[in-house]
Amino acid sequence: MGANLLIRNATIVTMDAVCRIIRNGCLSVTDGVINRMGEAGDFEGLRADREIDAGGMILMPGLINTHCHSADSLFRGLVEDLLLEPWLQKVWKAEAAILNADTVRLGATLGMAELALGGVTTVMDMFWHPDQTVQAARDIGLRVSTGGIFFDGPGIDGLNHSDRMNAAEDFFQSVSGQNDVLPGTFPHGSYTVGPEHLKEAHGLAKAAGGLFCTHAAETRAEVADIQNRYGARVINHLDSLGVLDPRTVLAHCVWLDDDEIETLARTGVTVSHNPMSNLKLASGVARVPEMLEAGVCVTIGTDGAISGNDLDMWMALRLAATLHRGNTLSASAVTTEQALRMVTSEGAKALGVSDRLGSLEVGKQADMILVRVDRPHAVPMFDPMTHLVFSTAKSDVSHVFVGGKMVVENGELSEFDLTDTVAEVSGLAPDILRSIQ
Amino acid sequence: MGANLLIRNATIVTMDAVCRIIRNGCLSVTDGVINRMGEAGDFEGLRADREIDAGGMILMPGLINTHCHSADSLFRGLVEDLLLEPWLQKVWKAEAAILNADTVRLGATLGMAELALGGVTTVMDMFWHPDQTVQAARDIGLRVSTGGIFFDGPGIDGLNHSDRMNAAEDFFQSVSGQNDVLPGTFPHGSYTVGPEHLKEAHGLAKAAGGLFCTHAAETRAEVADIQNRYGARVINHLDSLGVLDPRTVLAHCVWLDDDEIETLARTGVTVSHNPMSNLKLASGVARVPEMLEAGVCVTIGTDGAISGNDLDMWMALRLAATLHRGNTLSASAVTTEQALRMVTSEGAKALGVSDRLGSLEVGKQADMILVRVDRPHAVPMFDPMTHLVFSTAKSDVSHVFVGGKMVVENGELSEFDLTDTVAEVSGLAPDILRSIQ
Repeated sequence: MGANLLIRNATIVTMDAVCRIIRNGCLSVTDGVINRMGEAGDFEGLRADREIDAGGMILMPGLINTHCHSADSLFRGLVEDLLLEPWLQKVWKAEAAILNADTVRLGATLGMAELALGGVTTVMDMFWHPDQTVQAARDIGLRVSTGGIFFDGPGIDGLNHSDRMNAAEDFFQSVSGQNDVLPGTFPHGSYTVGPEHLKEAHGLAKAAGGLFCTHAAETRAEVADIQNRYGARVINHLDSLGVLDPRTVLAHCVWLDDDEIETLARTGVTVSHNPMSNLKLASGVARVPEMLEAGVCVTIGTDGAISGNDLDMWMALRLAATLHRGNTLSASAVTTEQALRMVTSEGAKALGVSDRLGSLEVGKQADMILVRVDRPHAVPMFDPMTHLVFSTAKSDVSHVFVGGKMVVENGELSEFDLTDTVAEVSGLAPDILRSIQ
Repeated sequence: MGANLLIRNATIVTMDAVCRIIRNGCLSVTDGVINRMGEAGDFEGLRADREIDAGGMILMPGLINTHCHSADSLFRGLVEDLLLEPWLQKVWKAEAAILNADTVRLGATLGMAELALGGVTTVMDMFWHPDQTVQAARDIGLRVSTGGIFFDGPGIDGLNHSDRMNAAEDFFQSVSGQNDVLPGTFPHGSYTVGPEHLKEAHGLAKAAGGLFCTHAAETRAEVADIQNRYGARVINHLDSLGVLDPRTVLAHCVWLDDDEIETLARTGVTVSHNPMSNLKLASGVARVPEMLEAGVCVTIGTDGAISGNDLDMWMALRLAATLHRGNTLSASAVTTEQALRMVTSEGAKALGVSDRLGSLEVGKQADMILVRVDRPHAVPMFDPMTHLVFSTAKSDVSHVFVGGKMVVENGELSEFDLTDTVAEVSGLAPDILRSIQ
């Protein structure tokens, strides 16, 4: 019997429970699912519609980015050298002037293209007009977790809270049964969404069997603000509202006390660690080693390119593995395996899809990437996992597959011609620049 | 009159004293020197042997890496998850087993290739067999600052201190008058080289009009060691020996007190900040904002790929610009301009060649690079300098010129076929792995 896709001659980094590595490995895919994986000798005589010789490459699970605002790529590098709070005032001004369904689609397409080219196969994305983000992800070929956004202000969608609840419910129904979308509700944060609205957004996610995502404890100023308003630290405040459970992904979590870390572990929420955004906006350095020690599910996000200023998961991975070593003076503060799990198996766990994503195993979806390891910055290679964390760059991503479908081939998008998108974004740049002046 | 090289249609980031930026800029080179630079209209009718349309690209000075051990690329990823001191024991074991003139040349060639492809045009490199490092730099086409190494142990060169002094003196003579080499003396550090030998190495550099470079204050353990041996902190110890002056480049400088920062400023030495190496080896985070505030010349190095685990100056630049924001909670702890100067004009100042390198100005050497800014991760672009620091990756480097000579064209080495080098390094990998077992 033939397969749809056969990859030969790869170093396979499976990220399964025992971190099995297969040298000179082969993997075949039928109907989007990995149906065979092993050493070259086991595959003699097997043929497939498409065969790829992956000599000089690592085959690994696609990266899972748990926090992004892909449409914000429109504003890359626009607002600089400010702390989060004054920065947000300018960002919101630009967003209000520029964003509508069309420009969200444009920006999200640009962002999704960058993500795909960098080896991301699934992204959790919080933004206005989530239906446009879904369309952009589908154009490029990625899986996306998104859904109704909540924000106790006018926002750019022109809706009030009740309308947003309806829109969020409609979103769940619109993507029901479609396994390229992992729907959820996305209230912006506890400093921008009141307690009752947070509870309602969480209740809706729970009723729909979806995810729940919000920004939390990103800056010291936010912690002081929540303390002032509600008499509690951010995580304790969220916990008191009953919105912390395994469906919850909290972005940032920089400013936590010991008790809050225990609460994260106890409630089974996921943290999306965004080191580049946190450094650039001078938000601080998250207590990642302590969270790992407590058993918290820690994953990695890029945040939007308006803070980053790119969507480079390899940079974020490298930072997650090194930053905490430098800050704690422990050379194993975050291990190589822990870092690599954050962007693969832990990412899948966060999104409730460990049964089908996050590692390369027979029976799982073929969300996977080929990474070149034969360039001057990448030889020699002694240990493939060390290599992926500390020597690999986004430009080493050669091929990207989502559910067995090829999305990137030899470093170029397979499914979408981005020429018009780049031209439109560049054409919009003068308006964007004027929007904050 | 025709030029040798004419670049049209670039966004020129000059890094001159006022950070002049020329949109739709042209630059021409004759005999390795920039002889004309301005807007497109000024260049009508000018012809050159080679013309490059740099639409969608930034033209900027080549990057100057002030701390590297390029031949250590042989050991990339070999020794992991250790603090500097136990890590060095394993590194030295591997070096002793593997290194000779041929393998230094091999490793240095690999390292120089990676540096060139990443946009570095000048590198300060400390290693055994500096003549081999010079040959490797020449094969690839880079400028290099290197010279006699000092180490109060057997080392891999089999020489005693007196022989090393002679070898260092010979090195100065061998490169005299050759402007692709900036010679110096390179004692390893104050914990591996005694006071008298440090003074002698500095005296030789001074007599020859060369540079002086050593590791300093990299870890807390080193500070304690020097305190214990000499009753002084590292910078005070070096100052007491009279080896701190403008010819001196101190790598790392992580653990400094206020008084030592003042000493660095007063003596006019250069600091080479190596953020990736310092994070990965859990050495700590250098006090870069305080050093800048005190007026210290701060530059950037990658360190060797054995600690890094690559030679990516863009990663180091991004870290230098963001790490200290995150750690000090100040969004302007290191400004965009300060960061970009560290890898260009301050790098040139450190090496005593500000008159001819470090910025794009008429009369200066044409050490310059073209950087693509039209890829999905790099649009839109509002401010070119912001873009270079926060959105550019090594893979965006398209062309590299050293003294007007093209070293990299469209992301590929122009002067050297690396195929055999990569094959030889891969062939040596099993021996390297065995060397630490």
